[in-house]
Amino acid sequence: MIDVALCPSEIRRLSGTDLSGVTAVVFDVLRATSSMITALAAGALEIYPVNSVEEARERKLKDPDLLLAGERGGLPPPGFDLGNSPDEFEKTVGRKVVMTTTNGTIAIQSMRHASDVLVGALLNVDALANYLFPRQTEDLLLVCAGTEEEFSLEDAIAAGALVARLAEDDRLSDSAILVRAIYERVGDDLEEWLRQTKNGKALQKIGKGSDIARCARLSISDIIGRLWQGAVVRLETSTD
Amino acid sequence: MIDVALCPSEIRRLSGTDLSGVTAVVFDVLRATSSMITALAAGALEIYPVNSVEEARERKLKDPDLLLAGERGGLPPPGFDLGNSPDEFEKTVGRKVVMTTTNGTIAIQSMRHASDVLVGALLNVDALANYLFPRQTEDLLLVCAGTEEEFSLEDAIAAGALVARLAEDDRLSDSAILVRAIYERVGDDLEEWLRQTKNGKALQKIGKGSDIARCARLSISDIIGRLWQGAVVRLETSTD
Repeated sequence: MIDVALCPSEIRRLSGTDLSGVTAVVFDVLRATSSMITALAAGALEIYPVNSVEEARERKLKDPDLLLAGERGGLPPPGFDLGNSPDEFEKTVGRKVVMTTTNGTIAIQSMRHASDVLVGALLNVDALANYLFPRQTEDLLLVCAGTEEEFSLEDAIAAGALVARLAEDDRLSDSAILVRAIYERVGDDLEEWLRQTKNGKALQKIGKGSDIARCARLSISDIIGRLWQGAVVRLETSTD
Repeated sequence: MIDVALCPSEIRRLSGTDLSGVTAVVFDVLRATSSMITALAAGALEIYPVNSVEEARERKLKDPDLLLAGERGGLPPPGFDLGNSPDEFEKTVGRKVVMTTTNGTIAIQSMRHASDVLVGALLNVDALANYLFPRQTEDLLLVCAGTEEEFSLEDAIAAGALVARLAEDDRLSDSAILVRAIYERVGDDLEEWLRQTKNGKALQKIGKGSDIARCARLSISDIIGRLWQGAVVRLETSTD
């Protein structure tokens, strides 16, 4: 079954269920998972998703070489090395990063008991499909991280882009049919639709509108992130 | 703001928030709210939505004139007068009904602290829009009742049909944009899409496939149900 967790309350509910045998793909398109893919592409070694600003700071106290990254209300908390703009993650070459955002990093943590946790974005949809399709994963759960307590449209569009590439109608839940249909409705106008979302509008308001175009680029990366022993690392896939 | 509660976990979360000033419209298209609209159109006096089969039976013990209606697993519990097929509710003329279903009646109950709770279906979308549009309700919450714990596509399509008729872009949450887009994607193929949903398939399996066509008829009724002192009753609207 291919299922989709549409909003944070649903992620919380599912995190309390048996996730063994489930492959989870977490989408926080604006911007946490897009930034993670950018970081791994740039050569970051490990990204530790943590739930709170305090936990991030404690980690850095123990290991000063770590880069602190993330946001609250769209902006980096005081003392952080990086915010949550994909551009900033170009600087993470060869570094380990601790990252905390309001939704994306929490959603990844919520799925930690799944058999496999992958990091998704519009940036790497084809890579995800190419990895998942031949594996015929029995239970695939696409996780839309949302914003605070709310559903985020851009995460559903990205999840739909993945469903559209897996294309097995008899395995789709109603929510999977829904996100595929919204992706089909959006078509080539990804950036325009992302600008109309709540997150898109908030980013434009704080002068981060250029992040939207950056996160809206479809399948420009062959990088997949995987949660492994508490860190998001680059999944090595054969590139034949 | 026009917002949409997409799934049961989200309905539970929102039921614990301050709903004063909120007008809630509850959709359980297959089949509870479609059946309620059918009952009110036929001339049922009051429909009491209750959460459990036991509570429904207790009410009937106290008032033997009540009709017991509802379902578990798509079929009426033992001793019930009616199931949950719209057709059966044609027989409710001049009667009071107690109704319990796995999701629709619970979703209505969950919204009881809202300022106004209306009952929606594809059957009465134009009536809902005609009622709501001139009122410019400050906060409108469209509630997709779902199935057991899951999101149901048909409820989102109906919610989207209502959003499409209210059409004020600057007041739409991401979830409202989503449901409007899915409705636009579905277009005139309502019955076909409803047949592909989890509920649609389940109904066909238990020989209730004809209910789908019945519930897929768009705006064939000018009836709106409203929760009033614990019962869903016919909302009297001017018909000029």
